[in-house]
Amino acid sequence: MGRWEPDARGRLLQAALDLYGERGFEQTTVAEIAERAGLTERTFFRHFADKREVLFAGASALQERMVGAAAEAPAHVSPIEAAAAGVEAAGAAIQEGGELPRQRQAIIAASVELQERELIKLAALASSLAEVLRARGVGEPEASLAAEAALAAFKIGFERWVDSSGERELPQVIRESLEALKAVSAGAT
Amino acid sequence: MGRWEPDARGRLLQAALDLYGERGFEQTTVAEIAERAGLTERTFFRHFADKREVLFAGASALQERMVGAAAEAPAHVSPIEAAAAGVEAAGAAIQEGGELPRQRQAIIAASVELQERELIKLAALASSLAEVLRARGVGEPEASLAAEAALAAFKIGFERWVDSSGERELPQVIRESLEALKAVSAGAT
Repeated sequence: MGRWEPDARGRLLQAALDLYGERGFEQTTVAEIAERAGLTERTFFRHFADKREVLFAGASALQERMVGAAAEAPAHVSPIEAAAAGVEAAGAAIQEGGELPRQRQAIIAASVELQERELIKLAALASSLAEVLRARGVGEPEASLAAEAALAAFKIGFERWVDSSGERELPQVIRESLEALKAVSAGAT
Repeated sequence: MGRWEPDARGRLLQAALDLYGERGFEQTTVAEIAERAGLTERTFFRHFADKREVLFAGASALQERMVGAAAEAPAHVSPIEAAAAGVEAAGAAIQEGGELPRQRQAIIAASVELQERELIKLAALASSLAEVLRARGVGEPEASLAAEAALAAFKIGFERWVDSSGERELPQVIRESLEALKAVSAGAT
């Protein structure tokens, strides 16, 4: 096996998701993931710290896309719309993963430990989004509240998208969730 | 030491919070907590599963207060106002703890592990609040979104209350956060 493997990371990710889905996260070993990917354990550990991090390795790229889009929203838009631009961009990034995000979600839903890790990542996204809004000149508590509201729309929109047949665009489902949140906040019954 | 100790639970709680504040959560043992409270370790374990649970033992009572208030909100109020009644009642319950909630919060803020546990408890509150709203006849995604919005107002309001001098009433600070969330969601700049 050569030292250089084309898309070793992608193959390891797909092998891990497949095995977690087939056998369960707890029951799968790094050795099995590497074998399924046709790679060595050493290669696995060049790409991922451990088998849990395979599932969360995309979080920093997602955060960058979200933060970048919120920061680049036109100066005149309201805090909630800047935050919305961020979470819609995060949705677009997820959608680029094809079926992998749905596969990943099913694995996370099956494990309390992984659900907890996911909550922590979502809280980190909310914090970084609030920080961007403050950098745009939004005061507190408005920055934190707009970030929390946008992340709530992101979370609920993502859950609905995962449960749907997959024909809908995730950024659009997130936008619909945000509009529903606005209506609910305004006292819609 | 007698078998029956008046308010053993309260004394253990206060001793634990004092010691966590003085020495740090990690550095404190159950033996030290029991000693400070003038009780035995055995008594400690009759009241708490472990030293972490001292900090989270109030969560189920808090959840009951919140869920009860949301369930009992008048039938004509909107989903967000039923959710608001829930989180304001939770705020009132916290306020009854006097200085303990602030002491507790400082300890949690100093530990990543405890912050993670707190996030999980907040997510459980949001889930149970959404469930109450569904029982009131609210559909999805509105029930989940109203619950998430109310919990965001609760979380941000609580943080502001903790940081304030303590003269404000927590339910009122939560209500102000909710009004700010409504204004932000409506596109206020």
